[in-house]
Amino acid sequence: MTIFPITRIPPQSGRSFKIKRGQILRVIDPVGEQVADLFALEEDDRDCRLSSGRSLDYAGRIYLTTGDVLYANTSKPMFTIIQDTVGLHDFLLTPCSQEMFEILYKHKGHHPSCFENLYLSLKAHGVSGADISTTFNIFMNVKIDSRGILTVGVPISKAGDHIDLRAEMDMVCGLTACSAEGSNNGRFKPIDFSILD
Amino acid sequence: MTIFPITRIPPQSGRSFKIKRGQILRVIDPVGEQVADLFALEEDDRDCRLSSGRSLDYAGRIYLTTGDVLYANTSKPMFTIIQDTVGLHDFLLTPCSQEMFEILYKHKGHHPSCFENLYLSLKAHGVSGADISTTFNIFMNVKIDSRGILTVGVPISKAGDHIDLRAEMDMVCGLTACSAEGSNNGRFKPIDFSILD
Repeated sequence: MTIFPITRIPPQSGRSFKIKRGQILRVIDPVGEQVADLFALEEDDRDCRLSSGRSLDYAGRIYLTTGDVLYANTSKPMFTIIQDTVGLHDFLLTPCSQEMFEILYKHKGHHPSCFENLYLSLKAHGVSGADISTTFNIFMNVKIDSRGILTVGVPISKAGDHIDLRAEMDMVCGLTACSAEGSNNGRFKPIDFSILD
Repeated sequence: MTIFPITRIPPQSGRSFKIKRGQILRVIDPVGEQVADLFALEEDDRDCRLSSGRSLDYAGRIYLTTGDVLYANTSKPMFTIIQDTVGLHDFLLTPCSQEMFEILYKHKGHHPSCFENLYLSLKAHGVSGADISTTFNIFMNVKIDSRGILTVGVPISKAGDHIDLRAEMDMVCGLTACSAEGSNNGRFKPIDFSILD
């Protein structure tokens, strides 16, 4: 197995990259308690995009972990989770955005956000903001009670925890080190990733 | 108040229509135990589309009812729920599709589906299949347990139950009488709707 170099995504920023079918995307929390939002589109068909709704429907669960598949809107498998040292990720919420900080936190002025970082990273690959829907929010701790109320907690990921996702098609991906205070225990940390094949 | 005529959507089919800001979309279950999938796009900006992830994030809950807002991916309000005689709707799952029937139910051959019915109805308005993401699944009974496991139950809607959604922008909408046996207690029934202003 060839291990490609680890790329570090600095706090509150994002990266885009391509991955080939069969390669493995490893996403690592190098410090702990940090979220990474992942979005993906098929390389040769940008209308084929990551879909929370399809993935949750086919899994029959909202918490996806080892053995589960992330599906596209076309119902094609995009990733299979083959290793997961954390086991708690979110697939309900859209990436944090400027508007989110204004609506939920009454923030004034520019706030870095996963949506902006994904959009700016993926723009080079011809991806528009409207193409980016609900992301797979790696290490994000979103709990739900019996009444359906959502609570965003501190990620349970510790330094060195990681998740391995096997690509089931050739894709363009965007990945962030999340910008939201409320999702990362108030401290902004980097996210590491590498591609193994 | 002018009440426009009621339109009946026959079982396992769909309709598209336009609605103006301030008008009210009333969706009625005329028989009971029937789901209606709703999708919407801004009339003048088709990149502005209904977003489950934004709506759930801003509500902080997965079950939306009277007083809650359905948001677009751009974080603009699309609908406000102003009356709801049922109080149980789904906003987690994508509309049922040919692929869903094949993957979850091993169905062979064509199966009518909300995705196909939305796509065929909205095509006349220049909407592509890729534009249709997670729908607001009116009257759909999706329960979630403490482990995050999803269960699709019989809708609790009875004959004559309805939900009123006030349009917060000019929109193109698609609406179905759902085609999935598992969501409608095994019987396919119509859905009625009208637009009030």
